[in-house]
Amino acid sequence: MLFDFNFASIPHIIFGAGRLNEIYGLIPKFGNNALYVIGGSSLKKSGKWDEIANTMQKKAISFSEISVSKEPTPALVDAAAQKFRNQKVDVVVGIGGGSVIDAGKAISAMLPKNDSIKNYLEGVGNKAHDGRKIPYIAVPTTSGTGSEATKNAVITELGIGGFKKSLRHDNLIPNYAVIDPQLVLSCPKSVTAPCGMDAFTQLLEAFVSPKSNPITDALAKNGIKQMKNAIISTCNDKALDITARAAMAYGSLMSGIVLANAGLGIVHGFASSIGGLFNIPHGVVCGTLLAESTKMNIKRLEHLGTEGKIGLLKYAIVGALINGKESFEEINVAHYCSILIERLDNWTKQLNIDRLGKYGITTADIDSIIEKTGLKNNPVHLKPEDLKEILIKRI
Amino acid sequence: MLFDFNFASIPHIIFGAGRLNEIYGLIPKFGNNALYVIGGSSLKKSGKWDEIANTMQKKAISFSEISVSKEPTPALVDAAAQKFRNQKVDVVVGIGGGSVIDAGKAISAMLPKNDSIKNYLEGVGNKAHDGRKIPYIAVPTTSGTGSEATKNAVITELGIGGFKKSLRHDNLIPNYAVIDPQLVLSCPKSVTAPCGMDAFTQLLEAFVSPKSNPITDALAKNGIKQMKNAIISTCNDKALDITARAAMAYGSLMSGIVLANAGLGIVHGFASSIGGLFNIPHGVVCGTLLAESTKMNIKRLEHLGTEGKIGLLKYAIVGALINGKESFEEINVAHYCSILIERLDNWTKQLNIDRLGKYGITTADIDSIIEKTGLKNNPVHLKPEDLKEILIKRI
Repeated sequence: MLFDFNFASIPHIIFGAGRLNEIYGLIPKFGNNALYVIGGSSLKKSGKWDEIANTMQKKAISFSEISVSKEPTPALVDAAAQKFRNQKVDVVVGIGGGSVIDAGKAISAMLPKNDSIKNYLEGVGNKAHDGRKIPYIAVPTTSGTGSEATKNAVITELGIGGFKKSLRHDNLIPNYAVIDPQLVLSCPKSVTAPCGMDAFTQLLEAFVSPKSNPITDALAKNGIKQMKNAIISTCNDKALDITARAAMAYGSLMSGIVLANAGLGIVHGFASSIGGLFNIPHGVVCGTLLAESTKMNIKRLEHLGTEGKIGLLKYAIVGALINGKESFEEINVAHYCSILIERLDNWTKQLNIDRLGKYGITTADIDSIIEKTGLKNNPVHLKPEDLKEILIKRI
Repeated sequence: MLFDFNFASIPHIIFGAGRLNEIYGLIPKFGNNALYVIGGSSLKKSGKWDEIANTMQKKAISFSEISVSKEPTPALVDAAAQKFRNQKVDVVVGIGGGSVIDAGKAISAMLPKNDSIKNYLEGVGNKAHDGRKIPYIAVPTTSGTGSEATKNAVITELGIGGFKKSLRHDNLIPNYAVIDPQLVLSCPKSVTAPCGMDAFTQLLEAFVSPKSNPITDALAKNGIKQMKNAIISTCNDKALDITARAAMAYGSLMSGIVLANAGLGIVHGFASSIGGLFNIPHGVVCGTLLAESTKMNIKRLEHLGTEGKIGLLKYAIVGALINGKESFEEINVAHYCSILIERLDNWTKQLNIDRLGKYGITTADIDSIIEKTGLKNNPVHLKPEDLKEILIKRI
């Protein structure tokens, strides 16, 4: 297992407080016409957008903009691609949360095409995207999805025939990821908390994935170490602390790199099914189900006996890391697995992560959710009744 | 320091025994005309080249080949680029040691140009390469330079006006790095030992570099952990052990990734100057100077007082890692620095790394070497007399 792996390329990363300013040097590398994909309001409210627009004008770089106020739908991506397809766009710049970064990624990939993104979505369309795209610079303003480092864009169609599916190709990894923790400083607790839980879920799920490899393991542990204290403190006394915000931004970036290479598990299986059926933020689904899903995975791994040992050891390593331990040679697996569970339970409470019920989900929905839930790269097989048990605890 | 960094993209990595075969799936992604850059003899002697040529014919992919039997010179690269410039080449595939991988990288970058590579070499020419190249697949057959993951190709002109300088651009990072430890199994001790010392030097120098960042630190530690035992065993009883060879190949790959992002130190400063003046394998220069250079760096860092603490801690972490320790919280810095030095001294002896004198270098050459030696990203300033002291010990 250790020594047979693939690792997709990662974007060129520019990380540091105040480094948003470097986009004006990057854009001309691709040309003189930029298309900005930005969020619904916060960038404009903060005055940051005016600052960007003024600087673009001063530098005489022409640009257009599109606002994305929710998780991107096929209709949104198609309309944007159609509008700008015949205009000259040399580079797409996405500045915002995960939805915006994904929208920008999808638009950059659909500009060179002539049909709907639906044709290229996994499990929806029957065409394979060839990776041709307009160069893309991703600038996250939340620390959550890690989409600035991944090769997929998640597209959502809500409702009964709804879905939450990916447009995916190795070449869709952004050309540049510019991560400026200053942009996250104004992020409120209601967003910071579920985003942080999403990023941590990604680190944990990729670390315990059967597809993990030595590189993803090293980077996942590195991300977990940075996030373990900041996940709570950035929602409390350190919301304006640039070092704590940088730690979260770094953890989120690592989570994107590792998920792109090792995949995810059952929590993101749920995020995909529940996210297609209900209007609920992605981070809330992940955050609310993380502790219970981890408990179930550990229980099922314990039942496996010898076969479950590697998975349990990995959970224990995460428990030890969160507990400040860095040496894992003679580790008490059961002890640190229970520390991990205890800590995840605490985080869920301390961060006031919503229950599913708040978004109208009831026990009557469980069967239709489970029917649409895939296990992804979960470290152990779970039966429908296991999934049901997880969901019931968080309705 | 922790949270302000750049990280260049890394190649798509395909790692595992027997995975050389995947090149036949990769090449058609770029087109139907491949140019192979291979070594002088060992690939042909082993029958591996016939196997590759036969498979290419069976798959009806047309190809040409160039042999590179020494460290690439401007004349070699220019001649190859000129010969194939007007033929259709869709992808360059370099299979060999560091010299071959660098030659292939340079040729892929010079095919779209019309002049000599000398114009683009750092410190030699006055043009900046723009990064346009023919796609490049790198397949190392030694575990040494890590060039399969770097953005530069080292070009050598021997003699009095000689140099060892880089063609460098972010976009020169190979598109794919295919690392098949089976290809290294036949590598003799005389090559394995200096290559291993080169790779370890790169991991160590990048780890202690002032330009190191959390990602390079995580990957450097990861590489050191894999190499710490295999560096000796692959030169002895485990020369044919695929797991030990894989550990070395992995360490070498990590060394390339981290050096591309954190830079190198004084040992590679010497490698550049000595390598331009004398006909001596790169790995021998690194291997023979590593222990003495590390002693000098540690001595100078100790003299610095507080300012030298971070550097010393990093050396101590490496000493601890080599000694099997993984927790560095309450580390005895002086103790583990001396363990590191002791271990490097032992490796140099156990691996019978040649002294410089064997290649005709005498004390009379020291001044001209020092004059051409840059410190690169060494963790501490060294004076000419420090450099002299290092060299004298290894003449």
